[in-house]
Amino acid sequence: MPEIKLAIDAMGGDNGPSIVIEALAQQLHECSSHHFFVVGQSDSLTPLLQQHGLHEHPQVTLINAEQVVHMDDKPGQALRSKPNSSMSVALELLSKGEADAVISGGNTGALMAKAYFQLKTLPGVLRPALMAALPNQQGGRSYLLDLGANASCDSETLFQFGVMGSVAAQVLENAPSPKVALLNMGEEEIKGNDVVKNAALRLTESEHVNYQGFVEGNHLFSGKADVIVCDGFVGNIALKSCEGLATLIVEQLKSALMSHWMYRWFFRFLQKRTQKSWERLKPDHYNGASLIGLRGVVIKSHGSANAKAFGSAIRQAIIEAQAQLPERIKDRVESVLLEQH
Amino acid sequence: MPEIKLAIDAMGGDNGPSIVIEALAQQLHECSSHHFFVVGQSDSLTPLLQQHGLHEHPQVTLINAEQVVHMDDKPGQALRSKPNSSMSVALELLSKGEADAVISGGNTGALMAKAYFQLKTLPGVLRPALMAALPNQQGGRSYLLDLGANASCDSETLFQFGVMGSVAAQVLENAPSPKVALLNMGEEEIKGNDVVKNAALRLTESEHVNYQGFVEGNHLFSGKADVIVCDGFVGNIALKSCEGLATLIVEQLKSALMSHWMYRWFFRFLQKRTQKSWERLKPDHYNGASLIGLRGVVIKSHGSANAKAFGSAIRQAIIEAQAQLPERIKDRVESVLLEQH
Repeated sequence: MPEIKLAIDAMGGDNGPSIVIEALAQQLHECSSHHFFVVGQSDSLTPLLQQHGLHEHPQVTLINAEQVVHMDDKPGQALRSKPNSSMSVALELLSKGEADAVISGGNTGALMAKAYFQLKTLPGVLRPALMAALPNQQGGRSYLLDLGANASCDSETLFQFGVMGSVAAQVLENAPSPKVALLNMGEEEIKGNDVVKNAALRLTESEHVNYQGFVEGNHLFSGKADVIVCDGFVGNIALKSCEGLATLIVEQLKSALMSHWMYRWFFRFLQKRTQKSWERLKPDHYNGASLIGLRGVVIKSHGSANAKAFGSAIRQAIIEAQAQLPERIKDRVESVLLEQH
Repeated sequence: MPEIKLAIDAMGGDNGPSIVIEALAQQLHECSSHHFFVVGQSDSLTPLLQQHGLHEHPQVTLINAEQVVHMDDKPGQALRSKPNSSMSVALELLSKGEADAVISGGNTGALMAKAYFQLKTLPGVLRPALMAALPNQQGGRSYLLDLGANASCDSETLFQFGVMGSVAAQVLENAPSPKVALLNMGEEEIKGNDVVKNAALRLTESEHVNYQGFVEGNHLFSGKADVIVCDGFVGNIALKSCEGLATLIVEQLKSALMSHWMYRWFFRFLQKRTQKSWERLKPDHYNGASLIGLRGVVIKSHGSANAKAFGSAIRQAIIEAQAQLPERIKDRVESVLLEQH
């Protein structure tokens, strides 16, 4: 596998640089062939790198960037007033070809705006999309996009998301012909609004997508489709609603289990014995949403990620960069555009 | 409490009339003052009523309706070609004032179309909405609407949903000033599409709604808002996505727990001891979505409801009819319309 150069925005995320450097230290043990640009305020980062024995590590280069994009900065403001932020400098390394991928746990809106502005979309791609993997009942993963890069989409954009998602599932899951579906409020052709209906027509016509039709929300986790497409408004709300429900269930389960010593004891026992099957469902395991459709690999780590979860985002970046996902998407979009003419 | 006359579409739902009559038998023990019109094919229903000792029960009247709306009928077809269906005849009893509420577990699209056509909306109400209660982390309930009556909505319609949901939460939860929020892909004012942004402006201006701003999907279950408003496309997908996640978690939990006799034994023990706190989360408990904004109480039971869940839908219908929810909504909408002029 080729050596990958990763640019890490070390200042992003709710937990700041400490978890980023901790994650890096963990990953360095596993990735002896890659190089890491750690981008951010050197005053904060140097002691952390020293603490983990990474200060003069041959695989690590510290790149100073004085500005920090905060979690509550408005995307437009961050774009205009913070050109020297760790986020912008990391993206610059990517756009100049000095890095192969960027990972950031920072402000999602700012990351999307800066990545769009600094990298631009691939030729023919209308809009980038935020995509994440979800565990499914078949024991595999399904990819959902868009998760919030676009508040509204026209049908051509949804169609392109189907194409891009299909390439991503092929590359990341070794699926020869991933099943692509549109998320809708019913499975019948007459259901939904004009945008999804027209997107369905476009997907049905294309030879480059194995289109399966509409799926409802309950199929996000069923494995009925490998790629599920919707606009960013719907995708964001669907995913966050699930987050909300998971929190409610965990809270309820905890309060039931913690009410008696015997439950607590049993729970720990059960947890150990069934760890493998649960591991698959843990959000840590799925951290690392991909901003696809751009001229480079950009991975968004969850703001609240711990070091283990941030490590998943780093691995996701390495996989996408090694597979040259942007180039693969570019090739497919080209074929699709040729098909139309 | 006044006597309520309920018209039950006995032919709807995946499990057919048997669960409807079983639910009725259970409810009759608790509702000695109400009257039930059981609407459907008398050939199927008579033996079931006899079996439960309800055949000549003074509180039960069997109304024959030969046609049945099937779960896969198209709404438009059902509307045009099945005027003598159990669903239509039940709605007719309501529109004529012979019944105070309708309950159906049948085809949602057909029920919405027929209810809209046969009952019409309340004066000034643009569109009806499907609304359901969700359990929240505060131990209470939040109301989500629209769940799929409208594939897309303009901002005035979303504003009205906020008004109607607010009245519903006041009446059903005895909340003096329910907190109303719009579901969006972010909490900041600049987030989302023009429709939610304009709906937010309308809600902020109105004195008739305690508007709190935008909430994200993770707040569906947090209790941050008592009423959460979105269009039917988003609401349907959000709720069904949660259904999908719940199924995945339950499947995973079952397979972990059933893998060893000791887990099974402990699970049963735990289930008994913590029944009360789980009971609150069970879908059975929340069965019965309200189609509000119409000139009458219409309750949609989940297609896969068992007798216990169908019983919840019956109780929901009684509560809304006793509280005269449609009249209360009518009064509030009138005040809102006056405010605008």
